[in-house]
Amino acid sequence: MTIKNAFYAQSGGVTAVINASACGVLETARLHPDKIGKVYAGRNGIIGALLEELIDTSLESAEDIARLRYTPAGAFGSCRYKLKSLEAQREQYERLIEVFKAHNIGYFFYNGGGDSADTCLKVSQISAALGYPMQAVHVPKTVDNDLPITDCCPGFGSVAKYVATSIREAGYDVASMSRTSTKVFILEVMGRHAGWITAACGLASEQEGEGPHILLLPEIEFDEEKFIAKVKETVEKYDHCVIGVSEGIKGKDGKFFAESGLKDAFGHAQLGGVAPAIAQLVKEKLGYKYHWAVADYLQRAARHIASKTDVDQAYALGKAAVEMALAGKNAVMPAVRRLADAPYQWDIIEAPLANVANVEKFMPRDFITADGFHITEACRTYLSPLIAGEDYPPFKNGLPDYVRMKNIMTPKKLNKEFKL
Amino acid sequence: MTIKNAFYAQSGGVTAVINASACGVLETARLHPDKIGKVYAGRNGIIGALLEELIDTSLESAEDIARLRYTPAGAFGSCRYKLKSLEAQREQYERLIEVFKAHNIGYFFYNGGGDSADTCLKVSQISAALGYPMQAVHVPKTVDNDLPITDCCPGFGSVAKYVATSIREAGYDVASMSRTSTKVFILEVMGRHAGWITAACGLASEQEGEGPHILLLPEIEFDEEKFIAKVKETVEKYDHCVIGVSEGIKGKDGKFFAESGLKDAFGHAQLGGVAPAIAQLVKEKLGYKYHWAVADYLQRAARHIASKTDVDQAYALGKAAVEMALAGKNAVMPAVRRLADAPYQWDIIEAPLANVANVEKFMPRDFITADGFHITEACRTYLSPLIAGEDYPPFKNGLPDYVRMKNIMTPKKLNKEFKL
Repeated sequence: MTIKNAFYAQSGGVTAVINASACGVLETARLHPDKIGKVYAGRNGIIGALLEELIDTSLESAEDIARLRYTPAGAFGSCRYKLKSLEAQREQYERLIEVFKAHNIGYFFYNGGGDSADTCLKVSQISAALGYPMQAVHVPKTVDNDLPITDCCPGFGSVAKYVATSIREAGYDVASMSRTSTKVFILEVMGRHAGWITAACGLASEQEGEGPHILLLPEIEFDEEKFIAKVKETVEKYDHCVIGVSEGIKGKDGKFFAESGLKDAFGHAQLGGVAPAIAQLVKEKLGYKYHWAVADYLQRAARHIASKTDVDQAYALGKAAVEMALAGKNAVMPAVRRLADAPYQWDIIEAPLANVANVEKFMPRDFITADGFHITEACRTYLSPLIAGEDYPPFKNGLPDYVRMKNIMTPKKLNKEFKL
Repeated sequence: MTIKNAFYAQSGGVTAVINASACGVLETARLHPDKIGKVYAGRNGIIGALLEELIDTSLESAEDIARLRYTPAGAFGSCRYKLKSLEAQREQYERLIEVFKAHNIGYFFYNGGGDSADTCLKVSQISAALGYPMQAVHVPKTVDNDLPITDCCPGFGSVAKYVATSIREAGYDVASMSRTSTKVFILEVMGRHAGWITAACGLASEQEGEGPHILLLPEIEFDEEKFIAKVKETVEKYDHCVIGVSEGIKGKDGKFFAESGLKDAFGHAQLGGVAPAIAQLVKEKLGYKYHWAVADYLQRAARHIASKTDVDQAYALGKAAVEMALAGKNAVMPAVRRLADAPYQWDIIEAPLANVANVEKFMPRDFITADGFHITEACRTYLSPLIAGEDYPPFKNGLPDYVRMKNIMTPKKLNKEFKL
């Protein structure tokens, strides 16, 4: 077998554990110098390949690569850049193959969500068509947890642990102050289309009366009247109400709730933030004192409270991707298969990319209570193992001691500029 | 010495470690059954005394009391309820003494910030005047870190660790995506008058280019033009800009920035949230893509990432309060004295309440850089030890396993309703 170099890129929104997958890819590749030469990482994801900006990871120390396991965000940079269809953007795919050829790259590892699974599949297809076949393996990643086949997606478990921990803590706070202060607390979390992250907030309420009392999921049409009645009932019963809301809830008109209502001084639609809009609604209808929080990037970057299950799976999937490539696989994605709920057991299976690309997995209806405002036992059974275990990063000077890679670019070989 | 009961109450906004102080008070009191009988905790703070709602902590197990050390928020309830001057509300103070007398209470431990230090002092004064002298000892607590005399305030170190960790993590996220996505990220933190929490964000930037790049402190008048120029310069240099902003920044007109600008659909001033307002300003003036987060209660309840220094001090101050009372002290507050910066050494001294009550400690100007946008080395030297050390709570089912007390009320002895 001839030695080929590999290309690895991070795609889309980064997570607390995408670097753990990178760590799995790089450490496993280094174990096979007879088959894999250098691993080049795309600077800022696939853009790095298009612009021939290839980070030479062989110049990174084994120690720094090991530290990727506990460093959040994208160590080599990521991007939001979707390659369109072959018909629409054939020159982009051709450019990729040209760059890969110039750098003797035979393995393509793409670490991302549904869109990048699609790109990965197309790279495999076009490379064959162009007579320079690449082994393209996708490494799953998305906090949205919306990829099919795999039991869950790396990145999700850690966000889930963060939001459940945070809303429990804030819930204790509100409960202890509600007599004279805040009655209603609202935490806005990510998940524009699928409600997995919002559902994870629900894990925090294990005892009678413990928040969150209400979840607003994007899978359930927001019904103002029912919601206000539920808030009132909850405050009358527990003297406070804790709410987890998805950024993507929609009203009867099918419009995002966050886009309705607020205008700035110039009459523009407001800045986003469904939590303040919900808070305002509660204030107007019920007059309760409220507080709200928007976790935004804090949730997906919170490596300090990552789920050990999530970190382990992220690493294992990166490792498995390399092993699949070495076994001659192409256009596949390693996926987590659940073998048992409690204790959680899982292994890794192979999913054909054709079955992964462009399929979104939403919350099943039986994971949501009949009234639409909380999660069921079936949902808890699914979610619980995904947030299990702690995997703290090392700290220095009181702060997480994350690594910054050297990120040295390999010299360009092509004499051509490429316009994105 | 006759045996007297004690009263303990939590006051104002709760913190990640106020229960650690409660733990220090209760565990220490239990070591002296020859002097202190029962410790009654006010249900919802001082309101519990006024309404004769006294939680009998002798009914709580030693194990549950030990668990208070790692449980955030107020285990017995807190309140926002300020007792005014003796002249204005004499009947309230008289009621307090009446309740204390009825339950043979001779020790008053009040766990709060500047306002409650003042109440504590007044209770001491009026009790003497009414011929039922109480030993009143204040236990410091406030995330705002604005009490005088003490080196720092329990609660602050943990918020500081939380915001510095969070803005570092989010900063890594933004840096890895800025090529095609968000350029400017804004985290709004607490501290309406004093900028200590915002300053703590600054600890996260230890390396060249690492965020936060800009801090907006309430001590510095917000200058739109200078700020926009600084954001532009930062993005041009690092391709992204991370900003920590206090909820309490004010413009040239002396008005809170958060109150300017946004209006809802009905023309009401917007809901609060300086982060979205700053984001909007950046968008208008520079056109950069932004994201923002508002940590709100998440920051002050985040026991999962508490500072060990903070937890240790919170406990030690609760313990010291009881020891001071047993030593016959009155109208005092145990305070932290810094003996050395690195390694941090501290002990506990006695501060007369008359010197504590109603004095606010702001950031000194030499803790802020000349341009007003960051912290100085002197500030780092002060802040660093306060976030040092981790003190993780135990976890169960993937979540922090916090205690809920039984909170059984002792039977009322007075035959009188009291109206708040």
